[in-house]
Amino acid sequence: MSTHAPHDPSSGTLSYEQAGVNYDLIDPLKISAQRAAAATAVHMSAHGFTEVKASRGESAYVVDVGPFYIASIVECLGTKTLVADEMATLTGKSYYDGIAQDTIAMAVNDLITVGATPLVVQAYWAAGGSDWFGDAQRAQALVAGWKKACDVCQVAWGGGETPALAGIVEGGRIDLAASCTGLINPKERLSVGDKLGAGDAIVLLASSGIHANGLSLARKLTERLPQGYLTEVQPGLTYGDALLAPTTLYSPVTEALYKAGITPHYCANITGHGWRKLLRHPGQFIYRIHTVPPVTPVLKFMQQHAQQDDREAYSTLNMGAGFAIFVKADQAAKVVEIAKACGIDAWDAGRVEAGEKQLLIEPLDIRFGDDDLQLR
Amino acid sequence: MSTHAPHDPSSGTLSYEQAGVNYDLIDPLKISAQRAAAATAVHMSAHGFTEVKASRGESAYVVDVGPFYIASIVECLGTKTLVADEMATLTGKSYYDGIAQDTIAMAVNDLITVGATPLVVQAYWAAGGSDWFGDAQRAQALVAGWKKACDVCQVAWGGGETPALAGIVEGGRIDLAASCTGLINPKERLSVGDKLGAGDAIVLLASSGIHANGLSLARKLTERLPQGYLTEVQPGLTYGDALLAPTTLYSPVTEALYKAGITPHYCANITGHGWRKLLRHPGQFIYRIHTVPPVTPVLKFMQQHAQQDDREAYSTLNMGAGFAIFVKADQAAKVVEIAKACGIDAWDAGRVEAGEKQLLIEPLDIRFGDDDLQLR
Repeated sequence: MSTHAPHDPSSGTLSYEQAGVNYDLIDPLKISAQRAAAATAVHMSAHGFTEVKASRGESAYVVDVGPFYIASIVECLGTKTLVADEMATLTGKSYYDGIAQDTIAMAVNDLITVGATPLVVQAYWAAGGSDWFGDAQRAQALVAGWKKACDVCQVAWGGGETPALAGIVEGGRIDLAASCTGLINPKERLSVGDKLGAGDAIVLLASSGIHANGLSLARKLTERLPQGYLTEVQPGLTYGDALLAPTTLYSPVTEALYKAGITPHYCANITGHGWRKLLRHPGQFIYRIHTVPPVTPVLKFMQQHAQQDDREAYSTLNMGAGFAIFVKADQAAKVVEIAKACGIDAWDAGRVEAGEKQLLIEPLDIRFGDDDLQLR
Repeated sequence: MSTHAPHDPSSGTLSYEQAGVNYDLIDPLKISAQRAAAATAVHMSAHGFTEVKASRGESAYVVDVGPFYIASIVECLGTKTLVADEMATLTGKSYYDGIAQDTIAMAVNDLITVGATPLVVQAYWAAGGSDWFGDAQRAQALVAGWKKACDVCQVAWGGGETPALAGIVEGGRIDLAASCTGLINPKERLSVGDKLGAGDAIVLLASSGIHANGLSLARKLTERLPQGYLTEVQPGLTYGDALLAPTTLYSPVTEALYKAGITPHYCANITGHGWRKLLRHPGQFIYRIHTVPPVTPVLKFMQQHAQQDDREAYSTLNMGAGFAIFVKADQAAKVVEIAKACGIDAWDAGRVEAGEKQLLIEPLDIRFGDDDLQLR
């Protein structure tokens, strides 16, 4: 992340932190929570089980229950609903079918990184008041979109919570999250980093747009746009509509890979922190990218209007790549083929090498070092 | 629930709906969501598994994965944090250690009703802004209380989400929830209603106070109290402190029962809808209560100041009983003994009989019929 200097909203570089998220305040809590959480692992032995310790730094938590591993997660959508609400006012359309897919994607795309098959999703829909649910068109769009995303991922929608939280959630707003439980079965599918090695290929899967990360920045940017959300990104496509493209669901790809006999050595869901998520693995490796996917139009538009250089943009946004699969180099072409068969564009984009931890995006002459991503 | 008539906040009966929650707006969404969710069960067969259909109407969703069942859930705390925040202003104390226990209790106490051992909890802490986490005392209390509740329940704290949701969650507030995954192992522990029968005993376990349901009413009531939250419920105990007694965690009892060879025929977590939750089981049974536990002082206080008759109070609040365990009659005394050994008071409070579905609280001359609880 770049400068914290005060800025004029109408010009100059707009960074993620200027858009309102201050990780310096959240991180101390995160660290103390992670320590306390790690200390609870001992309880698994009372049940005859053990945790997979390496999963502590990964996107989903994994427990060894004998015949297979269980992975679980809870994920928040974030603030994408604020864009949907504003666009609904401007266009009269309801965007909550796509918003539902976004929410499930946040959980499912993280869960699959450890090699899990998502099995059950629970819905967490916390509204600012009972009246949120009184808008039948919007509520039904949320239900229909949730169901459809479950169908795409072949997960069971187990149930959930629909609390009305006046005084906690803002009036007219909804806080959306999803929890997901999955199995790693057979156990060989476990992917928590031990398999990654020099020579592996980095396959990047296309994103559909901004997905659900970077929305604070996206919203802030409307202050600079002549017609706000209705400014056109390209002829016939408004900025708001482009932002609201639902997040790609990647579990059909990871399941298809399994059926084809391919077990990824590692996976990274490219969400917050943009391409720096390619540095997620704890090992000492160089990630050398030789092919950069085309940048999704809405992200190119954002980069231009936020006046970000490539380094800033790739450090924050997915820039066209929503998910990374690390596999044996001789499987890369097959992974690309399988992803495309699932309707998701893909590129054999780079290689893993031994060496000091860093990401080299060669076509753009960008380097991110270990210091650029502190997640653990 | 009783009348919807307008009311003067300073006098007259105060019902739950007058306190701001309108189920009429939420229920149509719930029904359509339940239908859509049920239709996703077919996906389990793609993975070689099946859902436990009877769990659809229960508190947690259950999937049969072969060697055991997996149960999962996500639960919201509700608005108890608003009481904690107000009391923190009034007293300077932080109540978030107890609030953490409340949140975990919401998930764990529901999960165990189906016979599951809770294994992993995930934290969902969505704040109104990064600055919420900047109050180190409060944040650390939340972490410490969360850890302690995990220790009591012998669950692993897997991880979670700490998003900053300015614009969705109100500034200075936090939306707390927990997801929980557990195993029903051995499979004979599954408790989704098929075992319940005439002649079974109803054992009630003591609550610690209001727990985390009925808080809208509890907050509304402060308008009537001379010193608001600082009004004394009994000498030396303010209304606010009494409300903030953390919810009892019942999983130590259900686990101890299993170790003692006792498998409940059914369980009901007494939360929203108060004692009407004793009607949760879908079958045609009479639940005849002959012994009513002492009413927790704060609930007695609320009943008095809300000017509710017993029927209204028992239909909304737990009135001293936070959890119900239905067992073979000759095991009731042992269940009471085991609960007390866990530090939780308990009563062999009634019997299940064949007949038209109803709850008869004989000492209070109260009857609730099937129409009084519509959850499915």
